[in-house]
Amino acid sequence: MTQYVYRFGGGVSDGQAGDKNLLGGKGANLAEMATIGLPVPPGFTISTEMCAVYYAEGQTFPGSLREEAADGLAHIEGITGKTFGDAADPLLVSVRSGARVSMPGMMDTVLNLGLNDETVKGLAAISGDPRFAWDSYRRFIQMYSDVVLGLPHAAFEEALEIAKEDKGVHLDTELEADDWRRLTGRYQELVEEEWGRPFPQDVHEQLWGAIGAVFGSWHSERAKVYRRLNSIPGDWGTAVNVQAMVFGNMGETSATGVAFTRNPSTGERAYYGEYLINAQGEDVVAGIRTPQYLTRAAREAAGAKAASMEESMPEVFAELAGVFDLLERHYRDMQDIEFTVERGRLFMLQTRSGKRTAKAALRIAVEMAQDGLITEEEAVLRIDPQALDQLLHPTLDPKAERRVIAKGLPASPGAASGAAVFDADTAEKRAGLGERVILVRVETSPEDIHGMHAAQGILTARGGMTSHAAVVARGMGRPCVSGAGAVSIDCRARTMRVGSNEVKEGETITIDGSTGEVMLGAVPTVQPELVGDFGVLMVWADAKRRLGVRTNAETPLDCRTAREFGAEGIGLCRTEHMFFDAERITNVRQMILAGDEAGRRAALAKLLPAQRADFEEIFRIMAGLPVTIRLLDPPLHEFLPHSEEEFAEVAAAAGGDVETLRRRAAELHEFNPMLGHRGCRLGITYPEIYEMQARAIFEAAVTVAGEGGDAPIPEVMVPLVATSAELRIIRALIDRTAAAVFKERGASVEYLVGTMIELPRACLMAGSIAEEAEFFSFGTNDLTQTTLGVSRDDAGRFLTAYVEKGIFGRDPFVSIDEEGVGALISLAVERGRAAKPTLKLGICGEHGGDPASIAFCEATGLDYVSASPYRVPIARLAAAQAALRHRQAVEALGL
Amino acid sequence: MTQYVYRFGGGVSDGQAGDKNLLGGKGANLAEMATIGLPVPPGFTISTEMCAVYYAEGQTFPGSLREEAADGLAHIEGITGKTFGDAADPLLVSVRSGARVSMPGMMDTVLNLGLNDETVKGLAAISGDPRFAWDSYRRFIQMYSDVVLGLPHAAFEEALEIAKEDKGVHLDTELEADDWRRLTGRYQELVEEEWGRPFPQDVHEQLWGAIGAVFGSWHSERAKVYRRLNSIPGDWGTAVNVQAMVFGNMGETSATGVAFTRNPSTGERAYYGEYLINAQGEDVVAGIRTPQYLTRAAREAAGAKAASMEESMPEVFAELAGVFDLLERHYRDMQDIEFTVERGRLFMLQTRSGKRTAKAALRIAVEMAQDGLITEEEAVLRIDPQALDQLLHPTLDPKAERRVIAKGLPASPGAASGAAVFDADTAEKRAGLGERVILVRVETSPEDIHGMHAAQGILTARGGMTSHAAVVARGMGRPCVSGAGAVSIDCRARTMRVGSNEVKEGETITIDGSTGEVMLGAVPTVQPELVGDFGVLMVWADAKRRLGVRTNAETPLDCRTAREFGAEGIGLCRTEHMFFDAERITNVRQMILAGDEAGRRAALAKLLPAQRADFEEIFRIMAGLPVTIRLLDPPLHEFLPHSEEEFAEVAAAAGGDVETLRRRAAELHEFNPMLGHRGCRLGITYPEIYEMQARAIFEAAVTVAGEGGDAPIPEVMVPLVATSAELRIIRALIDRTAAAVFKERGASVEYLVGTMIELPRACLMAGSIAEEAEFFSFGTNDLTQTTLGVSRDDAGRFLTAYVEKGIFGRDPFVSIDEEGVGALISLAVERGRAAKPTLKLGICGEHGGDPASIAFCEATGLDYVSASPYRVPIARLAAAQAALRHRQAVEALGL
Repeated sequence: MTQYVYRFGGGVSDGQAGDKNLLGGKGANLAEMATIGLPVPPGFTISTEMCAVYYAEGQTFPGSLREEAADGLAHIEGITGKTFGDAADPLLVSVRSGARVSMPGMMDTVLNLGLNDETVKGLAAISGDPRFAWDSYRRFIQMYSDVVLGLPHAAFEEALEIAKEDKGVHLDTELEADDWRRLTGRYQELVEEEWGRPFPQDVHEQLWGAIGAVFGSWHSERAKVYRRLNSIPGDWGTAVNVQAMVFGNMGETSATGVAFTRNPSTGERAYYGEYLINAQGEDVVAGIRTPQYLTRAAREAAGAKAASMEESMPEVFAELAGVFDLLERHYRDMQDIEFTVERGRLFMLQTRSGKRTAKAALRIAVEMAQDGLITEEEAVLRIDPQALDQLLHPTLDPKAERRVIAKGLPASPGAASGAAVFDADTAEKRAGLGERVILVRVETSPEDIHGMHAAQGILTARGGMTSHAAVVARGMGRPCVSGAGAVSIDCRARTMRVGSNEVKEGETITIDGSTGEVMLGAVPTVQPELVGDFGVLMVWADAKRRLGVRTNAETPLDCRTAREFGAEGIGLCRTEHMFFDAERITNVRQMILAGDEAGRRAALAKLLPAQRADFEEIFRIMAGLPVTIRLLDPPLHEFLPHSEEEFAEVAAAAGGDVETLRRRAAELHEFNPMLGHRGCRLGITYPEIYEMQARAIFEAAVTVAGEGGDAPIPEVMVPLVATSAELRIIRALIDRTAAAVFKERGASVEYLVGTMIELPRACLMAGSIAEEAEFFSFGTNDLTQTTLGVSRDDAGRFLTAYVEKGIFGRDPFVSIDEEGVGALISLAVERGRAAKPTLKLGICGEHGGDPASIAFCEATGLDYVSASPYRVPIARLAAAQAALRHRQAVEALGL
Repeated sequence: MTQYVYRFGGGVSDGQAGDKNLLGGKGANLAEMATIGLPVPPGFTISTEMCAVYYAEGQTFPGSLREEAADGLAHIEGITGKTFGDAADPLLVSVRSGARVSMPGMMDTVLNLGLNDETVKGLAAISGDPRFAWDSYRRFIQMYSDVVLGLPHAAFEEALEIAKEDKGVHLDTELEADDWRRLTGRYQELVEEEWGRPFPQDVHEQLWGAIGAVFGSWHSERAKVYRRLNSIPGDWGTAVNVQAMVFGNMGETSATGVAFTRNPSTGERAYYGEYLINAQGEDVVAGIRTPQYLTRAAREAAGAKAASMEESMPEVFAELAGVFDLLERHYRDMQDIEFTVERGRLFMLQTRSGKRTAKAALRIAVEMAQDGLITEEEAVLRIDPQALDQLLHPTLDPKAERRVIAKGLPASPGAASGAAVFDADTAEKRAGLGERVILVRVETSPEDIHGMHAAQGILTARGGMTSHAAVVARGMGRPCVSGAGAVSIDCRARTMRVGSNEVKEGETITIDGSTGEVMLGAVPTVQPELVGDFGVLMVWADAKRRLGVRTNAETPLDCRTAREFGAEGIGLCRTEHMFFDAERITNVRQMILAGDEAGRRAALAKLLPAQRADFEEIFRIMAGLPVTIRLLDPPLHEFLPHSEEEFAEVAAAAGGDVETLRRRAAELHEFNPMLGHRGCRLGITYPEIYEMQARAIFEAAVTVAGEGGDAPIPEVMVPLVATSAELRIIRALIDRTAAAVFKERGASVEYLVGTMIELPRACLMAGSIAEEAEFFSFGTNDLTQTTLGVSRDDAGRFLTAYVEKGIFGRDPFVSIDEEGVGALISLAVERGRAAKPTLKLGICGEHGGDPASIAFCEATGLDYVSASPYRVPIARLAAAQAALRHRQAVEALGL
């Protein structure tokens, strides 16, 4: 029979750190900590496999689970010496979720389970603290009602407020045992009113209700959204951890805290965290009370007064520091830890790899490798390439004027400007219209995730460095300033106020997540310098990777940026973008409107010098590197005007009449332009266009080669080829033009002619097409559109539903659809190389900057990927990781 | 060294009938006739291989050819005893083209070559007929100037008219030797004026000029158009035949004629043809003089007076009749023959398989098989399936009133009505706008081909049954009435007049190509009865074929027609056509405009009864046969109105406001609807639509099954599937709906669920998709669009250029692109059958009615094809031929 329950604590560990898929991250690490002798309250984990069983069986549990769980409870009872439901000395437990990967705020937790009207008295007696006992009981009812019974929590909060008002006090801490007892009674009434039944007094009923609620929360809307945003499969499921309670709220010698073994924001080697005396764990994370620092150094740096743990509990702190060091050496990574001190005794409740900013990840990986704790390869594999995005974007210009109106915590690095908005829905809506927004909230909750995702940055008035806002923003790579207490937010009036400064919704503010500053207006930004840890890691990565990394660029600025980011050439230079230039579009339109070849040639002759100048500039920037230039691709109607006014303007400028122009535009209209008269089809029907472009390329190349620097290496790329005949015809035109230019100029350059493989037919015919080509570049945008029969521009209406229903694992325009599109690419690679072993193979669709797709390119044996300039470093790192993983996989197969 | 020249005649035959690819049809058959002892004037053939060499070498001839040709000339001189260029007894030759297949009117011919100012005198002396000699010389100059030198022929005709006027005569025959001599001098002046050089007197220069002109004409525009219309590859090339002249114009004992061994219009077993006394062959074909009948019976049947050949030349006719019988037995097919009688002596100039109407082809094939001359299999293989189209269209209703205004020859069977137009360009233009037109011409020439193709039928005032108009119209399957002499045509005024009846351009006329009648107005038509020879051949064909043949139909009329034509079920019933019905479109639009599922369900409930009634009717017509119903496929915006007025109408009818409607329409707009929110994507996002359709199908099926006849066999087809998950989700919906209906009605029917395979990804994933499907139907229209990346609606701008440049052998929307689309289909068949051996496989794109594509389906092992109702018999025959040829091919491989 399948085992579903795994025990830990008291010298027993049924699981270990490697069992994450089975036990979830939390459960596996609790077992591991127990194994290495750390003080873990005893408990047991119900495996993730039960999650699927639970749903398969109509949200019920098999009988065998109840038996196993009873054994698990007996295990806890044996170690703690307490008995579950015992009125004299009751065992209390926590019930928590724990999936394979951390999903902050997504899953629900119940604490203090096991309290009822009888056991609460026992707890009061045993603890000698009736106030603690009744406070725990009322917390349990409140949490259980919310999470398990699904009752609205406002009524409970209102009852608490009334209790404080009745007594004339402001803080929870001012309430006494009797107050809590009365409130508990009131809570029980509320449950009966709302639920229609009394609060469950049977502790086993409590336990199974809580376990069911954890499994139930796996399919909550919040969890689904988080999984979709983070590409977590829905069938992984969650585990449930049932563990003996320890109490950080048993007075002044008790405390609870969360900590990182290094600074997760900067990567600095310093204990980093927060704690609260006389509190339960949820109090820290929820950001309701502002917590205190762990170390004296941190407290002093922040100028805070409340004593650090190092100062207030020096002995326990020393023990904790030892645990930190042990855990980091044991796990060989920075750890994110939860602990509780119960009456001076330290308990470890959780450890896991800590989330960190990209900057911190780089520093930690580089330092650990330099210290010999991990290898350089491991360091390279530790960094999420996507996360580098955080470092590759502009930061505030240090010379720019800043009208700082407030300062909060530097919760997630980077700077952002945008219109202030005060709720997640508005953030999503305005961002959907293309506006840059900053989401401003008192504090954030899981319900705000879609708004955080849509926003450029997040600002909160409350909460620490480990608050929901901070953790989620770091994960998403959004700048975040948290806990800016001076900011007063009026959600109804849709304004925020700091002293005399008022910001209305829609007014621009700027936040700097690296300093915590909040500024009025938009502040200019500067490019990051990619040195230090970043530079070191990139050197290691470049040494490991096999794939070349080029860029998709056509403006001088983009070309320069990409070269600085390490691009080894241009993989896609789109010539049509150059045609839209205001000074040229008239000639372009004249060419399109010409009634015959002579008319087109006249207009093209006027375009030639400008196009040649474009290429000269690009060749100079990319001196010595290959530059793949794609000949004109879009259908000609894309260049024609749309509005009446524009028609008149163009008619005047092009010397034609509006009627002719409009008629020609109507003639050029297409029902499905994506599948229309474009790509090499233009070159076949209007060879003079490609002839002009080829001439511009070769004239520019000869000129730049003659200037004495490294010669340019033009690679002329023919788009949308479906047959070898198309390429043969156009290739002949290009070669003829090159020969003519070289003869005229008395000088020549090396060049290649190749094609974009972006149609299923081209993949199938790759063998014969390769005979005409020196290179293939996979245009995976269009190849995805045609293979799947999905127009990217129109897919919005159903693609989200497709990803949600699991029809597509991920958006196929973001990550290559390996089964379909990938299979065609593999076929094309195989057939192309068989026909021409020297064939150069690359990818220039937007997938070229996507790490998962890069791994596919590595496995498929392409020669290079090409990505947008800001994604070049991401591609370099992803390529290195792909090479390392591919080698590992090959070695694992014993090849 | 490659042999390029092949001799024939005088007991020598370097070639034979099987050498058509090398020698062209004419050359191969001349060699064959010489071999079997028929009187063929001696000559030689320059092979088709030289055509390619000629173009490859910049339109020049290799030296070796000149040597071989000299040997060929010596061969002719040896047999005839005449010498080429000899002033005393000159050898004259004809130079003619001859490709693999006959291309009537496409290629050029030169007669009487070898005449010059000296040899003409020798010819006059030897023949004793100076008039004949000078007439021959002037004909030669005229023909050579036109064909070889490319001079305008109007000036020559004008000079001839002036000569007749000067002499005061009307007919050529009234001119005498001196008149022709003087005209020859005038012709030579014209040549020098236009060409700038004197007419070539060197007979070898004449010969090579003519040979070059034949090869040159292969790439004339006319030839290209003909090849494109008839799918003849441009690289086949033509051969050139050089042959001793024999003369039908040497007086009253000479004649020339063309004949068929059976009637090519009806297939009747009777010699059929025309001849002219004292004429050259071109005079018959050109339709300038109205020729006489061959047989007495034919003359009498036509009520003609001029003596038949049987009557005027009984001995030669008897010899000719013997040749006819010999040739038919030898070639085992009806022959199309050219002959000349020179002073009582018969010469055979050509034989070839005769073109015939579909009706004649059927009768000839069936009769020859019944006579044991060919096998039933050969009979089945003899009929061009495309040609059946002629028989499958309506003919004039015999009961309808006809206002017959003229009668011509029944040149190509079938009836047609349309607007009279008087030139080919107008015909093409008006037809392009969707109008049905009848092209009316005095006579047609190769320049008219595009207009003949565009027209519904052709009417000419001059020309016989073998005139250009008649031959081409029969080839194209267009009805044609030729030689309607009472019709007077004024091309300038754009009218035709018959007695007092005037028809202006654009007025409707009707022609009946089976009777030769020309009628005013449109005459109603009736369906053909498919019995007699057609029925016999179809029985033979059905016995040979393996592929099933279904139809694409959704209206009761189409379903009935298809079943009468032998359809074995419906392969594609498009449900969206039913949605456009005027009474339903409002509910459809209401459904689309609904803001939520409840609104959609309300509108769908109103559509259900109508949809159910559709299916009941179809199930009754197709009782006992499978009916494949495709669930809704097009994007919803196709159902929305376009004009302002319609918007207002719909808003009023649907109870919404115009603004909402317009906004929703704008929301639904797609950039590439072909790749948009359609097909099963609708079923995934709006399951209620497919649920309604499934309910309508099953309710209708249960009802019809309960009526006591054969039960319907619904096959529910899910369109545009790209992943197995889509099909799994929708299949579950269909099965659930079926189960619900069967339970409600207490009765069930057998049904299948399958999918259309119309995306490249679906072909690649056919293995996993097959696990969810009971059948695949290849939707080759969309599969071609996506595999090639070509929108059929937009392809017009480049597809013609692509076919002309040979990039595509044939329009891939007409005949399956076997290399690309075909490869994907093969892959899908293989993977689908591997996953599910019982998988039913069919095709329902328009390729299902194309014989070449049907051959592909046979070879690929599909189970059935599905074609439009009128193409069902074509598909049955094509399937039989494909099976026979496939078996032959397999046997040839010794498998």
